[in-house]
Amino acid sequence: MALIREVSLREGEKIDDLQRDGLFIIQDPARFCFGMDAVLLSDFAEQSLGGRSAEGDRLLDLGTGTGIIPILMSAKTDFSSLTGIEIQEESADMAARSVRMNGLEERISILTGDLREADALFAPASFGMVTCNPPYMIARHGLTNPDSPKAIARHEILCTFEDVARVSARLIRHGGHLCLVHRPFRLVEILSTLQKYGLETKRMRLVYPYADKEPNMVLLDAVRGGRPRLKVEPPLVVYERPGVYTEEIHRIYGY
Amino acid sequence: MALIREVSLREGEKIDDLQRDGLFIIQDPARFCFGMDAVLLSDFAEQSLGGRSAEGDRLLDLGTGTGIIPILMSAKTDFSSLTGIEIQEESADMAARSVRMNGLEERISILTGDLREADALFAPASFGMVTCNPPYMIARHGLTNPDSPKAIARHEILCTFEDVARVSARLIRHGGHLCLVHRPFRLVEILSTLQKYGLETKRMRLVYPYADKEPNMVLLDAVRGGRPRLKVEPPLVVYERPGVYTEEIHRIYGY
Repeated sequence: MALIREVSLREGEKIDDLQRDGLFIIQDPARFCFGMDAVLLSDFAEQSLGGRSAEGDRLLDLGTGTGIIPILMSAKTDFSSLTGIEIQEESADMAARSVRMNGLEERISILTGDLREADALFAPASFGMVTCNPPYMIARHGLTNPDSPKAIARHEILCTFEDVARVSARLIRHGGHLCLVHRPFRLVEILSTLQKYGLETKRMRLVYPYADKEPNMVLLDAVRGGRPRLKVEPPLVVYERPGVYTEEIHRIYGY
Repeated sequence: MALIREVSLREGEKIDDLQRDGLFIIQDPARFCFGMDAVLLSDFAEQSLGGRSAEGDRLLDLGTGTGIIPILMSAKTDFSSLTGIEIQEESADMAARSVRMNGLEERISILTGDLREADALFAPASFGMVTCNPPYMIARHGLTNPDSPKAIARHEILCTFEDVARVSARLIRHGGHLCLVHRPFRLVEILSTLQKYGLETKRMRLVYPYADKEPNMVLLDAVRGGRPRLKVEPPLVVYERPGVYTEEIHRIYGY
């Protein structure tokens, strides 16, 4: 039986069981719920450690939203300090309450702030890993309500991919990792931008909803100062058939 | 019954049936035989036309080797003129004899020459498509005999990927295609280099030997002056199980 610490919920918020290490998370469907993207990214980022424990090392999650990535990474790794930065105050407050609810406040910190200025908040080269599940869509393309929390999470309204790369390059130490998830249609721009900032993509995995369909996500692991040589991994296929996850997705979700 | 024109073979050369439109090709196993790479590239390049016939248009194949790509493309498309350029005299001579043997000399020309100077041989923007199955390996890495025909075909001894991109960008007209096959480990460099020369990669397909293995080839279609937006296609899987091709490979080989 999992122990949940006392926590206050605001209207519309719900508590979801992460089905891993007794972890829970607060979400508000009207704002933004984490998706499979964040779960796959956490698994992929764990693999970037190549079995190292990361004890004593620090992780930073840019645009942390609900805080899902630092919370999952706290269970999957031994990072001594995990920090999430989030520009939307209400999301950051919710993430901070999720951290307290799980009793993780000694390892995980949630800051309200603009990721574009994160390089002013932390010492250069002070993180072993930066993670990011950034907005996928370019600018306000097709938006009717660009100020909504969902729009800000999905569209490059308050930051661009270049901001993510620039800030990450300053904060990751030599040999450290930037792990991110994005949409394949922007892959050329993403790989070029990372390289421009000295982040060499070393590992890439495409996520295909079905084995014979186009991929809808790409997972990337770029190493600061890495030697140019990319390892493209086997396809990550989500569904065996409609409604039935593949074995690997079951493994990643841990059930 | 296919008609083969009279042709002279040199020692060590053999004639292979392409099992398509009664086409044959001369190869010398001691020099270099075309691989699945060239066959998959021809199929992928045909798709780049999106059903257009290409009649009246011109295709150039850089580093044509045996001439396999222009010969296959002559059967798959209506390009009125297909040119292969090859720096190794003996390969070019063999390719030219394959063209004559197939009675294709009115459509296909083989030139002996250096692809790095191809932009001096043809008018700028005079091709609708350039194809290339370039050397995959960087420089002379690991070579004992860098002057051998196989080494020149496989290693960037006489040209680099940047040479291919630079020359292609000058020879392809606005909206025309560069279709190529390469190794995934160089993908970051390839995509960045293409973009540097105004060739925007619009379509990418990874070739996986098995559905659960890492890809060993990548097919790319870059458009001169194209708008940045990449379509990553479904995985192209070669083997169903050891020794048994998938249905798609059977379709591509046409048997």
